[in-house]
Amino acid sequence: MAPGIASFLDGEVKKRSSQSCPLLFAASDSDADQLWFSRFFVPDPFVSFAVGGKKIGVLNALEIARGRKESALDDVLPLDEWRERAKKQYRASKPGMAEIIALLAREHGITRFRVGPGFPLGLARQLEKRRLVIEVAEGGLFPERERKSAEEAEHIRKGNRCSAAGLRAAEKVLRAAAIRNGRLLYDGKPLTSERLKEEIEIACLRAGAVSSHTIAAGGDQACDPHCSGSGPLRANELIIVDVFPRVTATGYYGDMTRTFLKGKPTDAQRDLVETVREAQARALKEVKAGASANKIHNGVVDHFNSRGYETKTGGDVPVGFFHGTGHGLGMEVHEAPRLSKGAGKLKSGQVVTVEPGLYYPGLGAARIEDVAWVRPDGCELLSSYPYRWVIR
Amino acid sequence: MAPGIASFLDGEVKKRSSQSCPLLFAASDSDADQLWFSRFFVPDPFVSFAVGGKKIGVLNALEIARGRKESALDDVLPLDEWRERAKKQYRASKPGMAEIIALLAREHGITRFRVGPGFPLGLARQLEKRRLVIEVAEGGLFPERERKSAEEAEHIRKGNRCSAAGLRAAEKVLRAAAIRNGRLLYDGKPLTSERLKEEIEIACLRAGAVSSHTIAAGGDQACDPHCSGSGPLRANELIIVDVFPRVTATGYYGDMTRTFLKGKPTDAQRDLVETVREAQARALKEVKAGASANKIHNGVVDHFNSRGYETKTGGDVPVGFFHGTGHGLGMEVHEAPRLSKGAGKLKSGQVVTVEPGLYYPGLGAARIEDVAWVRPDGCELLSSYPYRWVIR
Repeated sequence: MAPGIASFLDGEVKKRSSQSCPLLFAASDSDADQLWFSRFFVPDPFVSFAVGGKKIGVLNALEIARGRKESALDDVLPLDEWRERAKKQYRASKPGMAEIIALLAREHGITRFRVGPGFPLGLARQLEKRRLVIEVAEGGLFPERERKSAEEAEHIRKGNRCSAAGLRAAEKVLRAAAIRNGRLLYDGKPLTSERLKEEIEIACLRAGAVSSHTIAAGGDQACDPHCSGSGPLRANELIIVDVFPRVTATGYYGDMTRTFLKGKPTDAQRDLVETVREAQARALKEVKAGASANKIHNGVVDHFNSRGYETKTGGDVPVGFFHGTGHGLGMEVHEAPRLSKGAGKLKSGQVVTVEPGLYYPGLGAARIEDVAWVRPDGCELLSSYPYRWVIR
Repeated sequence: MAPGIASFLDGEVKKRSSQSCPLLFAASDSDADQLWFSRFFVPDPFVSFAVGGKKIGVLNALEIARGRKESALDDVLPLDEWRERAKKQYRASKPGMAEIIALLAREHGITRFRVGPGFPLGLARQLEKRRLVIEVAEGGLFPERERKSAEEAEHIRKGNRCSAAGLRAAEKVLRAAAIRNGRLLYDGKPLTSERLKEEIEIACLRAGAVSSHTIAAGGDQACDPHCSGSGPLRANELIIVDVFPRVTATGYYGDMTRTFLKGKPTDAQRDLVETVREAQARALKEVKAGASANKIHNGVVDHFNSRGYETKTGGDVPVGFFHGTGHGLGMEVHEAPRLSKGAGKLKSGQVVTVEPGLYYPGLGAARIEDVAWVRPDGCELLSSYPYRWVIR
């Protein structure tokens, strides 16, 4: 998987190994650095490190055959064997991971490791007791992960095809739904957020991705941007559908949002949605290498202010536009960089969502989200779905 | 959600706050301690801590309303406000999480925090620079998480109902499949592991859970216990189906495995499956509070040896029985305790899988997995699905 990335990484690893060697202890199912480094899925934490341009993993009997077959690791060492060796070396009846790593370091001539800020504190302290130097790479262990190759952009595009499949399923259900006393009926039963999410997630599965925590929230529920929605959906209310599935084969995410309304919008609803779409289109035009992410975000803020959409965050329930304009997307659904207040300059290869939103309890909420690959002279959209939003 | 647990925790928190206060910085979507503590889903890391019997969370504008409504936190503080205060306090234009936590500690009279072994090293070092003492709770921040209440057992039972829905879907597809030249055809097209997993995962979704990394592997592929399976499935081969979905509403997992065969088994296949089932039944009989997990595991090892099923782990591909007999299950799919070599005594309330397996390339593999709730006088099964395995 992704040989282009692996060789790019190899270069990085070679360049740095004279200083300190990257060390990881995490499950690649859940840790993006570990997945990026090893390129195969393991449910439990395992040790990996790089030395002399080689990527080495230490795997238990359960994972070792698959590690040799599927992973991007150059060398796979059997954990059991190294545990036995650590037992003798340190005369410990039950050597822990720290003893095993200390022995691996000794045998590979390593005295300093470089780890990500999220490296487990407990293990770090034990390694320090074994006189290893543990440096924290404050900007992340693999900051190069931010800049996506063409192959990675393709994986994210695939993720967004899955998101789009989810949006299509949602639109189809809303289109087929009947309006009865202001509520929506689908297949003769009340259409709830839960049912809509189920159809979206099934569509994602059929497209090759797993979607968790999908959002399909209507009316005032949608005014809480991370509320996933529950209970009956209503006619003539704005419904935010936000789908961020993870592609099963690669671990890359898609992330797209559309706002729908079944029935007939009011002028205020129409103005809200159109203002959000305008803000998004303007922001997308500004995305390119060297552009200030802070400025792009402030452009959205100014646009909303100029249209009279006020933001207030002091009270119990914030209103207006009170989240960032976007975030990096890759093997994590939220990763560097951010498009928000105080953020720096965009770099070529970064992949960011652009997702302004407006939230006003009583009126409802709108958010529209696409994904852009930052290029030297602009950006390439990695997501595609129509912006029609009124469903009769 | 789960008020019983919350009040149990409150007791724990109260008892300990004279010593050091638990501190977390993690996303509850992915970190079980944070989910257990806060009882609501947040996609990004956030700070939470307990002091004076109160659970406190520090949430950004995006999460704050939901935190007040949905979480088990007693107090929800706005991150933005505390960032502003830290800015003034430390005269930092961009105060980090460490400055915010240091200020929170000061205002709450805290000088020592207790964290889990997985607490992020980078943040811990920054807190130490701010002269906070960070103790690592080596046995885990909330070791009480191992012992499940009746309510939690019910959540896990629900997870296993979702697993069973997946197994039922798999069995239904296999039953409906036709055999053509040794391969399986379903709906006129070759039945692949991928198609079978899709049907399983859709059934899980319909039942209320998200299943990732589902295993549906046949023949020699299944001899690698974590190989999820790919390509066409064949008649007369053993097919391992392992389904561990996470219940969307609660975050608890189910985890069940059955081994199927479509067609006609050989005597060797029959003996393999029956031996695994016997081993499992024997192990389940021994599960109770005070029983040695090591002994239960060794019982399985001995049973297999006595039946002539040899285990070899030295070579490239391990054969026989080379994984643990089981693992704890809860808000993590693999958590404490383990049922394996060197493991300690079981405690009442723990929830463990019991899943012996045998793996022999050429012959195939069998694994059968159920979930047991450890009780003082035995165990209560939290999973239920028939053991029939030959599908004509």
